[in-house]
Amino acid sequence: MAIKPLRIIPLGGLGEVGKNMTAIEYGENILLIDSGIMFPENDMLGIDYIIPDFNYLLDKKNLVRGLIITHGHEDHTGAITHVMQEINTTVYATRLTRGLVENKLKRAGMLQDVSMITINAGDKVNIGPFEVEFFHVAHSIPDGVGLGITTPAGLIVHSGDFKFDYTPIDGWPTDLAKLAEFGGRGVLALLADSTNADRPGWTPSERVIDSAFDQVFLKAKGRILIGTFASLISRMAQVAEAAERHDRKMAFVGTSMVENARIARELGYLDIPDSLIVPLEATFKMKPEKVVLMCTGTQGEPSSILGRLSRGDNRQFDLQPDDTVVLSSHPIPGNEEMVHRTINRLIQRGADVIYDAIAPVHVSGHASQQEMRLLHQLVNPEYFIPVHGEIRHLKMHAALAVESGIPADHIAVVENGMPVEFRNGKMSIGERIPGGYIFVDGSGVGDVGPVVMRERESLSRDGVVVIHVVLNPDNNHAEKIEFSSKGFVFMRDAEDLFADAEEHLRELIKRTNGRESASVLEREMNRYFYSKTRRRPVVVAFIS
Amino acid sequence: MAIKPLRIIPLGGLGEVGKNMTAIEYGENILLIDSGIMFPENDMLGIDYIIPDFNYLLDKKNLVRGLIITHGHEDHTGAITHVMQEINTTVYATRLTRGLVENKLKRAGMLQDVSMITINAGDKVNIGPFEVEFFHVAHSIPDGVGLGITTPAGLIVHSGDFKFDYTPIDGWPTDLAKLAEFGGRGVLALLADSTNADRPGWTPSERVIDSAFDQVFLKAKGRILIGTFASLISRMAQVAEAAERHDRKMAFVGTSMVENARIARELGYLDIPDSLIVPLEATFKMKPEKVVLMCTGTQGEPSSILGRLSRGDNRQFDLQPDDTVVLSSHPIPGNEEMVHRTINRLIQRGADVIYDAIAPVHVSGHASQQEMRLLHQLVNPEYFIPVHGEIRHLKMHAALAVESGIPADHIAVVENGMPVEFRNGKMSIGERIPGGYIFVDGSGVGDVGPVVMRERESLSRDGVVVIHVVLNPDNNHAEKIEFSSKGFVFMRDAEDLFADAEEHLRELIKRTNGRESASVLEREMNRYFYSKTRRRPVVVAFIS
Repeated sequence: MAIKPLRIIPLGGLGEVGKNMTAIEYGENILLIDSGIMFPENDMLGIDYIIPDFNYLLDKKNLVRGLIITHGHEDHTGAITHVMQEINTTVYATRLTRGLVENKLKRAGMLQDVSMITINAGDKVNIGPFEVEFFHVAHSIPDGVGLGITTPAGLIVHSGDFKFDYTPIDGWPTDLAKLAEFGGRGVLALLADSTNADRPGWTPSERVIDSAFDQVFLKAKGRILIGTFASLISRMAQVAEAAERHDRKMAFVGTSMVENARIARELGYLDIPDSLIVPLEATFKMKPEKVVLMCTGTQGEPSSILGRLSRGDNRQFDLQPDDTVVLSSHPIPGNEEMVHRTINRLIQRGADVIYDAIAPVHVSGHASQQEMRLLHQLVNPEYFIPVHGEIRHLKMHAALAVESGIPADHIAVVENGMPVEFRNGKMSIGERIPGGYIFVDGSGVGDVGPVVMRERESLSRDGVVVIHVVLNPDNNHAEKIEFSSKGFVFMRDAEDLFADAEEHLRELIKRTNGRESASVLEREMNRYFYSKTRRRPVVVAFIS
Repeated sequence: MAIKPLRIIPLGGLGEVGKNMTAIEYGENILLIDSGIMFPENDMLGIDYIIPDFNYLLDKKNLVRGLIITHGHEDHTGAITHVMQEINTTVYATRLTRGLVENKLKRAGMLQDVSMITINAGDKVNIGPFEVEFFHVAHSIPDGVGLGITTPAGLIVHSGDFKFDYTPIDGWPTDLAKLAEFGGRGVLALLADSTNADRPGWTPSERVIDSAFDQVFLKAKGRILIGTFASLISRMAQVAEAAERHDRKMAFVGTSMVENARIARELGYLDIPDSLIVPLEATFKMKPEKVVLMCTGTQGEPSSILGRLSRGDNRQFDLQPDDTVVLSSHPIPGNEEMVHRTINRLIQRGADVIYDAIAPVHVSGHASQQEMRLLHQLVNPEYFIPVHGEIRHLKMHAALAVESGIPADHIAVVENGMPVEFRNGKMSIGERIPGGYIFVDGSGVGDVGPVVMRERESLSRDGVVVIHVVLNPDNNHAEKIEFSSKGFVFMRDAEDLFADAEEHLRELIKRTNGRESASVLEREMNRYFYSKTRRRPVVVAFIS
């Protein structure tokens, strides 16, 4: 039987390529990798989060053989409920990842509807025509895996999110031997994490944070508040170790922090003695120099613990004199401004704030250039597909791969929706699959599109003016004109403006004998307000 | 006669301290330094720019003895028309700075109304009771100055925006000797630029860019487009030199670029032979490998040349195959996302894009930590006031100053509006002057305040629903209900939602016999829409 073409399809919109979901298709079989969410950019107004556009899969639901989740971060797990509502397939995940995913399904009341299979690094599992070998990767969450996928067309290696940390917190480095073994076997194509393709050298080990923490703990006179992502389980372990070394008790603050710590401890991925942990409330009665709190909010999110502390409107507790706040994180691109504002406000409220520009209290979870080169060399693939990055990162990763000896025409820099096809051992790029972002806003999934976004953009810039015209049925003149505005001008200060606008509108209606439609009045008044204020509010008019 | 207190007052809102305007007050005399604008942060919706709140000065207009502009950047000059409309005082500036400021006044039709005095580095000028000595500083625009201000209370040194570039493009380094001379004389207080207080080491010389440019020019197969700030006159000189070395002609693209180049050339600050410069139109007929274009748009501004090229909607010309685009700039915090998006789009359109993560095509114009230490040492002030930075930068600069031997209680980390006072040689911090941001939006100055901003924020998140209810005068039931929405849901897809909403509202009106006011209906419908969509649109209702 002839070998059919193999297709690798990163799904999603303009974001990072293949980050949130990738489909591997062979004949009548589809294997999915990850089902994550993207966070909205600053100009995606009002959007809560974004899920990959998997419309392509909807009329192929019965071909989907399984979904592998590589690790427990939101950008790989966050869309699980949306995907499972449409495509109910078996989910494969390691123990910790499964625990975190099950927690999501449980909160959505969907736990009973999804069948999950626990896999371990080192396992070999047949999923349809795909033989998947899971190998351990070090990353900023424990129990992450990469994939060796033997397909009838050849062996595909997917790095997952990884770094080559030789001294990771959980003592479990990326499986170099397995990567080399794949290389020896012969790899058709490598898909590899490109997040840090613009960073020279090696990403430091998570261990470098320990000595930075020691410095902070030695100097801090009062409480220590350490902010980080709720998924950064290894950071929790490091804080616990530092707390033990410096004789402090530790409390987790905030639902996601508390829940993730509980899951990780229950499953044995976070080894903290009970004696070290106290409930938040207990810390209020303890000496400040005996307390370390772990909380969220390092991205400047207004509703997070650090966000609320920075504004002084946190309910359970406030900043105290001599508090030290550590931001053990790096701003996600787009969040810099909010993060810096939060830092400034925390300082204004008297906290000593330590962040990554001041001390190495955070390291990236992704490989830098030298690690990428090592991966290329170990796996030695015939073809290379840089993934997990914006196109600028993929281009840089491709350039590194060329330096590693992979010919440029054996490298595919693609965007989401562009299938990479292998036929008889040759790579080509297929026709683009239509699709893009699916915005989630409130309970709506995909109902906010370009028209609504453009309206929000206009509203955000200059607000809205609503006009109600009552016509006198006898002469069709305006009997009554009411204005109401939001986000345009402060109405009480703009009485003259609206008095003039009313006069102008009255004249217009008189001139046209009240025959103009509401939309003509809207256009005319938009022009009028622009001429007076150089602002273009959205105008909505009713005539009755 | 007893010496009166001297007050140094940074003016403005939550932005960088003393960046846009500083007042120095002695008795019945005020000297102003700079009158710049701040760019809005991402959540200051619809705001064009921000001017410092100088309300404090309005009832002291007649005490203002002069305004010194230290250099020609927008954050030091941009508010000149607003300030001059209220406080008409003599403006002191160097030749280039004056040229750039006059251009602004001319465009506002105000050139005749303002009296300006040209000063040169090295000049000593008496302004009221202040004897001001101007000294040259190297920065990312030529002809910048710092100030030595002899007041009856003592000598104040203000660094202005500076770096210690020993090999600046214009061959004119910061005046170390003058700084040392001040130090020898005895300085009461130093105000110094803190922008890069979190950067260790030295800021590289502008000269390092030359070799990066050479690499780019050697490799580029087609046109080269170099994006930078329109005020970066020295970068224009470097591009011209590279064009000459590599046998290309140069064109300036965009009004601000063309105007600034013209002013700088006319005043002798940009020495480019006429033979090297061609008009943009001429380049369309030239061989691409003979062309370099200089344009704006390195901050991802949608309406800039690079913004338009990245979307393919530039009017005069498009990207061509083999174009190389250089972003000779660094993203201003808050702009990262837009800059990266622009880079990705330029790459998608086939351009080879070089930016600061790839090659050293930009350096900062501000001093790093070692330069700050050198400044402390040269000036050796009794008191230190870190300025030009967010509070987190000022704190770091203060920590560096302590390392430089300035006692912590001789350092004032203040926010805008907080006067630093000197009485009998002792420093204290005075009562805060009320004030903050003044937003400029369209032709409105200061008319957009917190209420309007909150409305824009709500509108941007979930849009607006306008409801028009016509009551039947006989029974007070709803005779007609009309809905119109913008930015909430796509109306055509939401017919059911609005039909249900109409039903709900009709019931409500019936139940209450039409006695509820519009604002009650608004509140009720806001609740209703939230229950159905988990979104909270602004609701505006009219009853007739």
